[in-house]
Amino acid sequence: MAAEGLGALLLTTEPEVRYFTGYLTRFWESPSRPWFLVVPASGLPIAVIPSIGAELMGRSWVEDIRTWAAPCPEDDGVSLLAATLREVGGPVGVPMGYETHLRMPLADYMALQAASGLEFRSEAGIVAGLRAIKSEAEIDKIRAACAIATRAYGRMGEIAGVGVPLSAVFRGFQRLLLEEGADWVPYISGGAAQGGYGDVISPASDAPLAPGDVMMLDTGAVRDGYFCDFDRNFAIGAPNAEVRAAHARLIEATAAGYDAAQPGARACDVFAAMAAVAGGGETAGRLGHGLGMQLTEGLSLTAQETSVLQPGMVITLEPGTEVSPGKSAGKIMVHEENIVIREGGAERLTQFSGPEIIVL
Amino acid sequence: MAAEGLGALLLTTEPEVRYFTGYLTRFWESPSRPWFLVVPASGLPIAVIPSIGAELMGRSWVEDIRTWAAPCPEDDGVSLLAATLREVGGPVGVPMGYETHLRMPLADYMALQAASGLEFRSEAGIVAGLRAIKSEAEIDKIRAACAIATRAYGRMGEIAGVGVPLSAVFRGFQRLLLEEGADWVPYISGGAAQGGYGDVISPASDAPLAPGDVMMLDTGAVRDGYFCDFDRNFAIGAPNAEVRAAHARLIEATAAGYDAAQPGARACDVFAAMAAVAGGGETAGRLGHGLGMQLTEGLSLTAQETSVLQPGMVITLEPGTEVSPGKSAGKIMVHEENIVIREGGAERLTQFSGPEIIVL
Repeated sequence: MAAEGLGALLLTTEPEVRYFTGYLTRFWESPSRPWFLVVPASGLPIAVIPSIGAELMGRSWVEDIRTWAAPCPEDDGVSLLAATLREVGGPVGVPMGYETHLRMPLADYMALQAASGLEFRSEAGIVAGLRAIKSEAEIDKIRAACAIATRAYGRMGEIAGVGVPLSAVFRGFQRLLLEEGADWVPYISGGAAQGGYGDVISPASDAPLAPGDVMMLDTGAVRDGYFCDFDRNFAIGAPNAEVRAAHARLIEATAAGYDAAQPGARACDVFAAMAAVAGGGETAGRLGHGLGMQLTEGLSLTAQETSVLQPGMVITLEPGTEVSPGKSAGKIMVHEENIVIREGGAERLTQFSGPEIIVL
Repeated sequence: MAAEGLGALLLTTEPEVRYFTGYLTRFWESPSRPWFLVVPASGLPIAVIPSIGAELMGRSWVEDIRTWAAPCPEDDGVSLLAATLREVGGPVGVPMGYETHLRMPLADYMALQAASGLEFRSEAGIVAGLRAIKSEAEIDKIRAACAIATRAYGRMGEIAGVGVPLSAVFRGFQRLLLEEGADWVPYISGGAAQGGYGDVISPASDAPLAPGDVMMLDTGAVRDGYFCDFDRNFAIGAPNAEVRAAHARLIEATAAGYDAAQPGARACDVFAAMAAVAGGGETAGRLGHGLGMQLTEGLSLTAQETSVLQPGMVITLEPGTEVSPGKSAGKIMVHEENIVIREGGAERLTQFSGPEIIVL
């Protein structure tokens, strides 16, 4: 902050506020109340929050907690926040770059700028830079989330098979994740179709699984505020030779990414190592990303990104491949594992899959 | 839009984009990619989205879908969106008021303003106004979500009782919601303590339930993109007289709110009807809110809010009461039901609880 000449940081989103305070609640689901954290250039953070959160925030290390009776559309914390920022002093750094957003009404933000009389500008990625390097405590939490999902994937035979609608598998998989210890399941996705899938972002349909389908399930399950994010592929009945080969190719690509994920390597180097095996070249898209308090955060493994890997970064390796390269462009398969960058090489946070696709 | 002199609306959040397109995916969980919808003053909406969403958006009624290969931090849709807005023409209306936020990096928003050369200003609540009045199809979806949660609450005896940690109850309740047909469970909250609870926004602790505890569980479960939001209270073992009386008082307050929820009544009138029974007066906080594509949306039942109820509005009635009025300020109980405003009076979307607290 000194290097950027900032007097304060203003943070408004769940992961930003939680990163500096430990304030963990699902109450953010409601858009009705804004929450603010002011991080001064020197001194302790100040929480400026709705009074309903005062007790829980009081259990954190934050001592200075200022509250108002939200929701109060006429002045939803704006004057209280403006006074706090004036007291701390500017310029005020706000996250404005890639992957950020401002979680308060834009009109209130403009009113805040006017009321405080301070300069507001980009915090220049300070918060994302801090969050990118995980502490051992954070890595342990991500590892715990991964272990939960590993156990849930291991029970897939209980809920999926020929004749079961994919929508029932989606519900059942979330249930298994909870049984295995997830606090909640903010994200799952997947797909199923004959000999490979295409779309993996749609809600599950009620169409029953059929022999010859390849099913993929991906999850972001949360334990103690930290995500895992990895998938598994399943063959419904015996897989054909192309599906088996595609799965083996993905596992090989993941291994190539793992080997390339050395401190000092660039994100594009890890991308290139995986794309060389899985195919797709420059157009392969994003083959992994940072992971932590959000399902995706920080760097992207793309052909363009030159961010340098550092010890403590947790990332996903997520190669995709065409099932029949050069023949049917529509059928793909995707595989994903989670690792942490260490001095001397990466450490696995998931139990890496073997080359043979699991048959249900 | 004509009345406000707007050439286009620019929408960036999940419920805003889904409201106009039906685009339903859990992919929004990742902050890595922005999504845009441009609604022209005349003509059809235009989706400006990452290419990964093109296929799913193509199944909606949107015909004009413009894509870029996201994530691309250097130009994450900004130039494509600027060109689209220039083509449609301004001024550009952006949701800026209560409960809104802008889901794109602030720096990109500023770049967009510069690149388009158009005037950006508030859309004056047009979107919230439309969303506040639900269609019968929307009401059916909310009713279906309510029915799912009703069935899950009815099975509470399977997962909760003396000696069970509250954290296990939270996991088990989410599991029951999924078994009963929820697509996902973005929100649950609750609390449990002797003779009434205080904090209801914290994560569940591992402390086991004990005889004399009063447990509350609240949920936002989603079916087909629409939320329910209601709670139930449970006595762990025989409740004492104060707890029984407090529960009966909440049911009576809810009934008073239900009777007051007539078309033409103001939000503060419904608030007053409930506060008169449950206590708390002006300081009672928020005793309900709008409900739909978000857990909370639209009006708030507070002492201050003068919004007028109209047929088709779906709201929650959520009175709170001190268990021992005037004695221990810390112990409270909260009750919540969901209704839709109709000509001639409200219709229940939940099966209203009786005056006796459920005993586990």
